[in-house]
Amino acid sequence: MSALCDVAQLVSVALFTPKIEDSVKFFYDYLGMEISHREGQSVYLRAYEDFYQYTLKLTEAREPGLEQVTWRASSPEALERLAKKIQASGAGIGWTERDYAHGPAYRFASPDGHKHTLLWELDYFVADAELHSKLRNRPSKRPLRGVPVRRIDHVNLMVSDVPANREFFTSVLDFQLREQKIGDGGTEVGSWLSVSALVHELALMRDSTGGRGRFHHVAYWYGAPQHLLDIADIFAERDVRMESGPAKHGTTQAYFMYCFEPGGNRVELFGDTGYLIFDPAWKTVVWDVANEVDLEKSSIWFGGQLAKTFYRYATPVVPGHSLEEIGR
Amino acid sequence: MSALCDVAQLVSVALFTPKIEDSVKFFYDYLGMEISHREGQSVYLRAYEDFYQYTLKLTEAREPGLEQVTWRASSPEALERLAKKIQASGAGIGWTERDYAHGPAYRFASPDGHKHTLLWELDYFVADAELHSKLRNRPSKRPLRGVPVRRIDHVNLMVSDVPANREFFTSVLDFQLREQKIGDGGTEVGSWLSVSALVHELALMRDSTGGRGRFHHVAYWYGAPQHLLDIADIFAERDVRMESGPAKHGTTQAYFMYCFEPGGNRVELFGDTGYLIFDPAWKTVVWDVANEVDLEKSSIWFGGQLAKTFYRYATPVVPGHSLEEIGR
Amino acid sequence: MSALCDVAQLVSVALFTPKIEDSVKFFYDYLGMEISHREGQSVYLRAYEDFYQYTLKLTEAREPGLEQVTWRASSPEALERLAKKIQASGAGIGWTERDYAHGPAYRFASPDGHKHTLLWELDYFVADAELHSKLRNRPSKRPLRGVPVRRIDHVNLMVSDVPANREFFTSVLDFQLREQKIGDGGTEVGSWLSVSALVHELALMRDSTGGRGRFHHVAYWYGAPQHLLDIADIFAERDVRMESGPAKHGTTQAYFMYCFEPGGNRVELFGDTGYLIFDPAWKTVVWDVANEVDLEKSSIWFGGQLAKTFYRYATPVVPGHSLEEIGR
Amino acid sequence: MSALCDVAQLVSVALFTPKIEDSVKFFYDYLGMEISHREGQSVYLRAYEDFYQYTLKLTEAREPGLEQVTWRASSPEALERLAKKIQASGAGIGWTERDYAHGPAYRFASPDGHKHTLLWELDYFVADAELHSKLRNRPSKRPLRGVPVRRIDHVNLMVSDVPANREFFTSVLDFQLREQKIGDGGTEVGSWLSVSALVHELALMRDSTGGRGRFHHVAYWYGAPQHLLDIADIFAERDVRMESGPAKHGTTQAYFMYCFEPGGNRVELFGDTGYLIFDPAWKTVVWDVANEVDLEKSSIWFGGQLAKTFYRYATPVVPGHSLEEIGR
Repeated sequence: MSALCDVAQLVSVALFTPKIEDSVKFFYDYLGMEISHREGQSVYLRAYEDFYQYTLKLTEAREPGLEQVTWRASSPEALERLAKKIQASGAGIGWTERDYAHGPAYRFASPDGHKHTLLWELDYFVADAELHSKLRNRPSKRPLRGVPVRRIDHVNLMVSDVPANREFFTSVLDFQLREQKIGDGGTEVGSWLSVSALVHELALMRDSTGGRGRFHHVAYWYGAPQHLLDIADIFAERDVRMESGPAKHGTTQAYFMYCFEPGGNRVELFGDTGYLIFDPAWKTVVWDVANEVDLEKSSIWFGGQLAKTFYRYATPVVPGHSLEEIGR
Repeated sequence: MSALCDVAQLVSVALFTPKIEDSVKFFYDYLGMEISHREGQSVYLRAYEDFYQYTLKLTEAREPGLEQVTWRASSPEALERLAKKIQASGAGIGWTERDYAHGPAYRFASPDGHKHTLLWELDYFVADAELHSKLRNRPSKRPLRGVPVRRIDHVNLMVSDVPANREFFTSVLDFQLREQKIGDGGTEVGSWLSVSALVHELALMRDSTGGRGRFHHVAYWYGAPQHLLDIADIFAERDVRMESGPAKHGTTQAYFMYCFEPGGNRVELFGDTGYLIFDPAWKTVVWDVANEVDLEKSSIWFGGQLAKTFYRYATPVVPGHSLEEIGR
Repeated sequence: MSALCDVAQLVSVALFTPKIEDSVKFFYDYLGMEISHREGQSVYLRAYEDFYQYTLKLTEAREPGLEQVTWRASSPEALERLAKKIQASGAGIGWTERDYAHGPAYRFASPDGHKHTLLWELDYFVADAELHSKLRNRPSKRPLRGVPVRRIDHVNLMVSDVPANREFFTSVLDFQLREQKIGDGGTEVGSWLSVSALVHELALMRDSTGGRGRFHHVAYWYGAPQHLLDIADIFAERDVRMESGPAKHGTTQAYFMYCFEPGGNRVELFGDTGYLIFDPAWKTVVWDVANEVDLEKSSIWFGGQLAKTFYRYATPVVPGHSLEEIGR
Repeated sequence: MSALCDVAQLVSVALFTPKIEDSVKFFYDYLGMEISHREGQSVYLRAYEDFYQYTLKLTEAREPGLEQVTWRASSPEALERLAKKIQASGAGIGWTERDYAHGPAYRFASPDGHKHTLLWELDYFVADAELHSKLRNRPSKRPLRGVPVRRIDHVNLMVSDVPANREFFTSVLDFQLREQKIGDGGTEVGSWLSVSALVHELALMRDSTGGRGRFHHVAYWYGAPQHLLDIADIFAERDVRMESGPAKHGTTQAYFMYCFEPGGNRVELFGDTGYLIFDPAWKTVVWDVANEVDLEKSSIWFGGQLAKTFYRYATPVVPGHSLEEIGR
């Protein structure tokens, strides 16, 4: 069996949070995620249609931010090939032992310093009698809590240099460049990359604050537009800060909503499919955001602007760029 | 650039219809498809988010049914490799000249006699000023007619022998087997195969009428559940025969609705994403339809049965198995 | 302040259930209702947008069925007027003392023997800090459990003689006759009546089993079509028996789904608004269900038939007409 | 038959437009409305579930704005009673002859100078064979054009003095005050009034520009949230200016979207039911918009602010307050 490229898929995102119990509660109560495991300062969770043991790891830390992103190779051989290419690129950190629910993995750092792990072997989630679903293609029952997300979708990283990071992922890891935003003077301000029919499992956006290696958001997927209205209703009742949306991006055509989990990390909820790419000779969609029409249409297709915080707030927070300092 | 396998995607379905103008009107007025071209007895159409020149070809003929299915290889080299493998399998028909909007193509017949075309070169749709969309990832404006479908999704073929046909597509063409229905005595009654993150671009279902090489349906995709209610409302007003749905299959998790275009061919409208497969080591989901729970849950997840016609009506019609003869 | 007629609205439905704790769990866990009160063998519940103290009373009993329906008069004077008219009609039972959350009430029996209570004074629900909503027109926070229903909508009673019962509600209580189904030989088989812009707060359907005074269903309202798919998904996972739908009735244009709570009573979930009636000279919509087109269109607008149980099963169960005996 | 008050319902809104053909095209092509009649400089239209001959009259004029609002009394007697009360209040203009599709009507001006017509007799729409619907409670077939609105919902008028206008409608016409926004120093900045279970058929908002008798918007109803996304998609493709939304008001709980028809008048599309009021002793919901939380929650429940133009732009335009001058 083969895959679109040697990287097959996004497996999980590991985040730091200064409020571990509040963060867990957020994902468990509101987003209906299941807790797979607790170990040391960490809690492992998954959405009810995530097939693996976990897709989100939360670890207590002084500041919010990204611990690492985990990717699955498309075969054991692909893992070997990728490890060699990464090592040759100078980005390699090295092989790690088995970790919770994961087999041997190769660690590396992308150019801005974000940490990643690449693996082949990992544990599938096996439901017990209580969570077992009669729907044979569903790894566990739809939960009764909150508005349950279905699966992890993508991760968005802020980078000080978009071309350098984008080049790393396309050349070394063979990601496909699906969409791009080009700003004044031809500056590449954002790139959307994927290893599947999704428009992106990885977005890279320019960090104009001087920060490096910061985390913008992880996205969980609903599929149904109504669920964004439902979760927004729940958040509005409970003072969860929402940043933008529910609205529709032009870029990726995502029907989205952004919010902040209690630890300060941004989370996107994804309310439809956007569009899918099957064309093997896809030509990158380029938005000219120096142009006002493209700037608006790519951000919010129906008109309007994303919140100012969207462009400057990321975790960990850079001094002078907290949510309060940026303002609405 | 590579692809999940040497076949990259479903390009189009070509159908025969005894009522060409009524059929065209159905897809144009109700499903909001655009007419790309007319030539001889044929009319070429596409949905507004189909990237290529056409995804549906309708040709006037005495009886409804399938002319052929067209697939795109993932590269020129993949096309060569596939042509050789198909030829070696004995299923090859040979290379064809350029056709409307298509470059050189290799033709073959799958074991039940269904015709297929495989190609690399093809024409992209280029919108004129009137159809040009400001949404840079949308190949043409969302139309104002009916409830417009967004893109072609999959094709379903009835076959006299599921294992033989399934084996051909998995061994020779490297399709992935995603889901399967196994009936009494271990008989394979249906298989769902894909070359991408979709659960299927191709379904094979057992034809128990003695027919061979028949066409079950082509599916166009909406993505939004509401659109199935909308199009069903339009059909109910206008005496378009609906067969089953809007309802949710357990198999593929599709929110579906089946209807018949005026020429007699079955069309599925697909109202959400179902689920997507990114796992490079996917284990085929097997439904044991000898078991009543699995039979019902795989057919209609919320309970109930598909119409009797679903299991026996296909085009061309086998004597004794018309819609009227089968009854509701 | 005045109202459309002297009866202003449906307040609540009181049901008997042989499985009180299972029934409560069903409404609490799956439909997200709140428990207002427990007293003796009874539990009182409300949906999160029900303004009064309760809209559903469940009482333990040997058999499922209706205890009573409670209506609110449009003023204290209207209550007096109605009590006199009912008494004069011979249907009166008499005034009752205060009951939980209710002031003085006039009790009566409609012609088939169904019990009703009519009142003016009643307690509004007042949320504590935990349930308090920031949405000032919402009496309590949207809950995090299941797929929460928003408010009570209507009640449907089976009657041995539709014209007699319909006549009682229109003449004595001034209900408006909104829609009607007329069968073979001009038999009135169903009537939909309302006291507001809703098409019905009360439906009367012919009981052909020989039963009298039986309960067909109570409907709770979602408003959003997606929520029917969501609750059906939850029910499918948990073996709650669904009878028909999600589908759209022609009559009332309701997007509906019927299921059975564990005590055996039928519950309808209502997934949109249907349509509203503001015309003060409304002409009753008449469906000629002796005619096959009208029979189908009025039942399921997109085609198909309601389950057989829909026409014969009601509570309490008449011998020979249990769900198992009727079959699917 | 009686009604909630002597005014039974909103019948129609008559607007002036400087671009009559573009305006007609907007309502016909995009909102799927049907043209009932053309006469002189006027075009009459209706939505497919509007029961009367028309609900929108467009008349060519130099400037956009309101010609009049038409209301139906709940009976011939109610019409007489109302005419007398209005005349006594000094607001009466007098009886008019029959007009297109309307019987004798009483005209009056509300305190800010907005014109209104009150009538009993009017023509119902009777569909010809082509528009005839099989759905017996639907006055004409669902159209195939654009995203068709279902019925007129409400009208919003800007007034220089909210209390005076509100008092007129509640005292003289017996409208019910459903919701209210109170600003700094107890100023009433908006009132929502109704004569039915709807939260409003009439909204009155303070005009802070010094304008008098201006028109804020007319709302047409979809009922399904998806339809707001659909029409917004169509508008985004075709440069129809959208002002705010799709989003959810706290006030009335409407899922809304505002846009401008080519003549410059604001149109609201209403994507769900909001909530309905059946309580005969309804206590006005009061939002304290001097308080920031209430200001935001009442405007956009999920957070954010309405466009600045929403508070100052109305038709006819007051010098200095055009869309361009106010800016986004």
